[in-house]
Amino acid sequence: MTTTTTTAATPVAPSRGALRPLGLGDIEITGGFWAQRQEVNATRTLGHIEHWLEREGWIRNFDDAAAGTLGARTGREFSDSEVYKLLEAMAWEIGRSDDADLDRRFGALVRRVAGAQEPDGYLSTAFGRPGQGARYSDLEWGHELYCYGHLFQAAVARLRTRPSADDGLVDIARRAADHVVATFGPGGRVAVCGHAEIEPALAELGRATGERRYVDQAALFVARRGTGTLGDIEYGRSYYQDDVPVRDATVLRGHAVRANYLSAGAVDVAVETDDAELLAALTTQWQNTVARRTYITGGQGSHHLDESFGDDFVLPPDRAYSETCAGVGSIMFSWRLLLAQADPRYADLIERTLYNVLATSPSHDGQSFYYTNTLHQRRPGTVPASDAAVPRASTSMRAPWFAVSCCPPNVARTLASLASYVATTDDDGLQIHQYAPSRIRTALPDGRSIAVDVETGYPHDGAIRVTAADSSDEPWTLTLRVPSWAAGATLRTPEGTRPVSAGSVSVRRRFEAGDVVELTLPVAPRISVADPRIDAVRGCAAVERGPLVLAVESVDLGEVGVSTDVADLRLDPSVPPRVVDGRVVATFGFERPAEGPWPYGADANGTGGRTAEVPLVEYHDWANRGPSTMRVWIPVA
Amino acid sequence: MTTTTTTAATPVAPSRGALRPLGLGDIEITGGFWAQRQEVNATRTLGHIEHWLEREGWIRNFDDAAAGTLGARTGREFSDSEVYKLLEAMAWEIGRSDDADLDRRFGALVRRVAGAQEPDGYLSTAFGRPGQGARYSDLEWGHELYCYGHLFQAAVARLRTRPSADDGLVDIARRAADHVVATFGPGGRVAVCGHAEIEPALAELGRATGERRYVDQAALFVARRGTGTLGDIEYGRSYYQDDVPVRDATVLRGHAVRANYLSAGAVDVAVETDDAELLAALTTQWQNTVARRTYITGGQGSHHLDESFGDDFVLPPDRAYSETCAGVGSIMFSWRLLLAQADPRYADLIERTLYNVLATSPSHDGQSFYYTNTLHQRRPGTVPASDAAVPRASTSMRAPWFAVSCCPPNVARTLASLASYVATTDDDGLQIHQYAPSRIRTALPDGRSIAVDVETGYPHDGAIRVTAADSSDEPWTLTLRVPSWAAGATLRTPEGTRPVSAGSVSVRRRFEAGDVVELTLPVAPRISVADPRIDAVRGCAAVERGPLVLAVESVDLGEVGVSTDVADLRLDPSVPPRVVDGRVVATFGFERPAEGPWPYGADANGTGGRTAEVPLVEYHDWANRGPSTMRVWIPVA
Repeated sequence: MTTTTTTAATPVAPSRGALRPLGLGDIEITGGFWAQRQEVNATRTLGHIEHWLEREGWIRNFDDAAAGTLGARTGREFSDSEVYKLLEAMAWEIGRSDDADLDRRFGALVRRVAGAQEPDGYLSTAFGRPGQGARYSDLEWGHELYCYGHLFQAAVARLRTRPSADDGLVDIARRAADHVVATFGPGGRVAVCGHAEIEPALAELGRATGERRYVDQAALFVARRGTGTLGDIEYGRSYYQDDVPVRDATVLRGHAVRANYLSAGAVDVAVETDDAELLAALTTQWQNTVARRTYITGGQGSHHLDESFGDDFVLPPDRAYSETCAGVGSIMFSWRLLLAQADPRYADLIERTLYNVLATSPSHDGQSFYYTNTLHQRRPGTVPASDAAVPRASTSMRAPWFAVSCCPPNVARTLASLASYVATTDDDGLQIHQYAPSRIRTALPDGRSIAVDVETGYPHDGAIRVTAADSSDEPWTLTLRVPSWAAGATLRTPEGTRPVSAGSVSVRRRFEAGDVVELTLPVAPRISVADPRIDAVRGCAAVERGPLVLAVESVDLGEVGVSTDVADLRLDPSVPPRVVDGRVVATFGFERPAEGPWPYGADANGTGGRTAEVPLVEYHDWANRGPSTMRVWIPVA
Repeated sequence: MTTTTTTAATPVAPSRGALRPLGLGDIEITGGFWAQRQEVNATRTLGHIEHWLEREGWIRNFDDAAAGTLGARTGREFSDSEVYKLLEAMAWEIGRSDDADLDRRFGALVRRVAGAQEPDGYLSTAFGRPGQGARYSDLEWGHELYCYGHLFQAAVARLRTRPSADDGLVDIARRAADHVVATFGPGGRVAVCGHAEIEPALAELGRATGERRYVDQAALFVARRGTGTLGDIEYGRSYYQDDVPVRDATVLRGHAVRANYLSAGAVDVAVETDDAELLAALTTQWQNTVARRTYITGGQGSHHLDESFGDDFVLPPDRAYSETCAGVGSIMFSWRLLLAQADPRYADLIERTLYNVLATSPSHDGQSFYYTNTLHQRRPGTVPASDAAVPRASTSMRAPWFAVSCCPPNVARTLASLASYVATTDDDGLQIHQYAPSRIRTALPDGRSIAVDVETGYPHDGAIRVTAADSSDEPWTLTLRVPSWAAGATLRTPEGTRPVSAGSVSVRRRFEAGDVVELTLPVAPRISVADPRIDAVRGCAAVERGPLVLAVESVDLGEVGVSTDVADLRLDPSVPPRVVDGRVVATFGFERPAEGPWPYGADANGTGGRTAEVPLVEYHDWANRGPSTMRVWIPVA
């Protein structure tokens, strides 16, 4: 159990826990898969989001509110939050890259937000004016507290990356938080927001500002959740987790984004209040959710109807909702548990979700996005108009913007702060959780300095080479995560090479500059099947490579020349997939089902055909070459 | 091609077509499966519906509208239609059983409706008053024309069963129809209703009243559909079939009830306007929908989100929506095609849908209903409160009433008029489509009389015995449907016994009173698998018996003593299911999957166990013995 009062430039800085996060000043991703995505995020995505927020009028709502001219407001009731999430993403990016132009745009945007705040701290463009609903008159769907949450997270990002900035965002957040405490705090209205988010945000604002009242308010909101303060709705109170108190629940349920945001905040509360019972309940919920309600991609939420988790094992690939924001929320939840408990399984899920949900959402150019992430595309998608916002879940191809556009800025803020999720320290050393070329310079509480460089071609190459950049006077412990899929991993140290098993491996030594510790993870492609209770993929298999889920995409079938529809493919599991010219290829049979008037009967087999090798695509990369059909789960021959 | 001007007491009486419907005066179901359900419908369900319509205030809306005191109206915008569907059900029941008390209640209810009609024929309790939307201001969701449709179908039922009644319902319908023609007819507003239903209803009202203008208005509405007169919505215009003109479409899509109602009306229009091209397009749509978008139960519509058809072969059993009303709509569509074209496949689907969707909805006591009809219940259901309307799709057990309660009266009107769907005539004889103990007395256009009695224990016994009740002077042709599943069927006539193949079989003779023609259909239980493109049931099989789909239900596992969860069952297809003491039993292995932290990997098999015989339940009969888990599609060992 470490304790710390320093606050690194990181989204989550608990006052205690097993691990201590590094800030953006301690670690830099210097190349590879994620650096490339951070670059696209910085140079393309942030401007794209700003453009659309202007275009749709969601920033103008603040101007109009400030001027007292807000008539026909544009956007959904929660559109303010997208502006705040952009601010958060900008703040992290400024902290990461020190971009002066971005800092100027950030300040300008903050000033526009500031004008809309009311004297008592209340801030919403959607409520409280003539023709609008009264403040907090619709906690089920109004999202006012949800929006504050994103405001607070933006302020935390700013405070931790530019503590002396004079733009005023932190003050705006403080005034809003004080207003929330006055309104919903002890002696105030006993209520919660229909969409959790203020819980982790208040906890973090409390940590960042030292205002314990904010943490206490987060604890109040968490304690009230599940006591039925929200109205019943067609989806049931489980939709917003108001069905069961957090400490009594055993699994995540209801709206998948809400559930994960709430869980993240509840971990924060459990840690700050030293509530072991609450933390244990959340650990159980995480375990059951991962074991029974999570896609192979790490995606969560299978219902289109209410964007919710289904029952245990209801994970249909062709109707996967797997909202990008639920992936972000899952990372938030897992990361907080990792900091609290140091169990590498949390980092396993974060990795899986980063590569297969977060990285899947944006297009190569960072200017269009998946909101939902299906695992099976049956018909070639339709390219959405480049100049129109589209319905959130109906896009079969990535779209530039959505009528509900929570996902693009959520991706952006996560990518901009991604370095923070790579490594941690404890009282005796450094733990590396995610493998990317990176530069780490930090110090332990007792003053021992740590300086290492990580070189790797991961995830396509399993060799992860950690080189000491400095000599240490005292020994310290380097801990490396060994993913659960990495059977046969080995570790090479100056003392020799040894097999290591899944979990983590530690090396304690006095490092000399140039000392190398090299972890080799087996990233040969492998075939995976599912628990038989996941009925939707019975008789199918998926191909994985390291943390990457692969897929077969119709645009790769043309050269094979047997079929142009992934529906006809049957994976031959007897031939191990192999890597050819950098791409994984697998062997398939082809079977065109017979057409008939009725699809049920004594024998519904189709006609067989020859077998052929077909290249697979990394799932995150699908649908970047035009409309296609795609399968992650492929029927076995 | 027959033509007729007589109008039997039947819901659908085309002016031409291959077959001519019998009216309730020509045919009576005298016993068995359906007679029992008609009795429950008459004695329990009609009163139950009337009670709930009063209780919820949906009838009172008419009183208040008449009194000019309609303030806070209760019910959804389409609740008027439920009152009309009850009237239709009552009218058929009065025609069937001549119940004087029911006739009195019918008249009283009509008077309450009548008072709300405006002088120009407009009739809706949901629009046009202070505080309400303007008339026809929300055609996408307002349902005014949809409600007229059910009003017209009620009037048709009354006109054909009690042509001289003085209750006034037919006049109400005529005034409303005239208003519709004046408003939306030639030179009027070019628009359609977001929910099709007025199309078949106007066509039928035109047939029943001889007003060609109504048929022409139906034709106009059908022609306008698919031209984008409705607004775009998040679900897309396909939701209300406004994406593609009816004659250009190739498959049903969008909201499954809307799609079927529209198709039924389009067949009516095609028949009355002799539009072979339109009829051919609808035939193709029916074929593709049956081949690719229909559950083994006959159920249609797999999306909870928008109650819609999914893409081809997206038929997940555990998220089957399969709305009861979509089953009713499918029967409406198939029946019209059957009358037009005489293809027995239409009657096959009607039979399947009757036994496995329509019969599944009501409980044994006829006082609770399924709105959706899942094919896989993973968790034991929750018994809904008996004194509250519940959300439509969230019930895992049958519920007494729904906030959207379209299904109960839809079942009621279909059951009350069911005899009409049993048999038809053409110019040379009688065609029996559905097998039930029945008494048929009718005449051909040239005066030849037909009198037969049907005796059968179908669907549990495959022997269908048709006995001539009268001697005929001239020969006529008796045609019997041979269902597509009935391989090995035989026909015994006075001349001997011969095998018959699927489709239909005809016997032309001069019948003597007492002559018997006996069709024997093989109703031994059989195992069926699905087209491999139905991914959701890969590796599974279902057990059927005649037209009945069977299921395994957890309440039957207790006596077996190996597991109490249907998730553990693996069907052994090498042992044919058999009938023991009247119930079908099948042989299963049991497999409890291993619990683990992550449900994907190289091997996810569970532990095996012994095999045992387990009794199956007829699908329509499941969930009548308390909460349970249930599967239609069972993994194969």
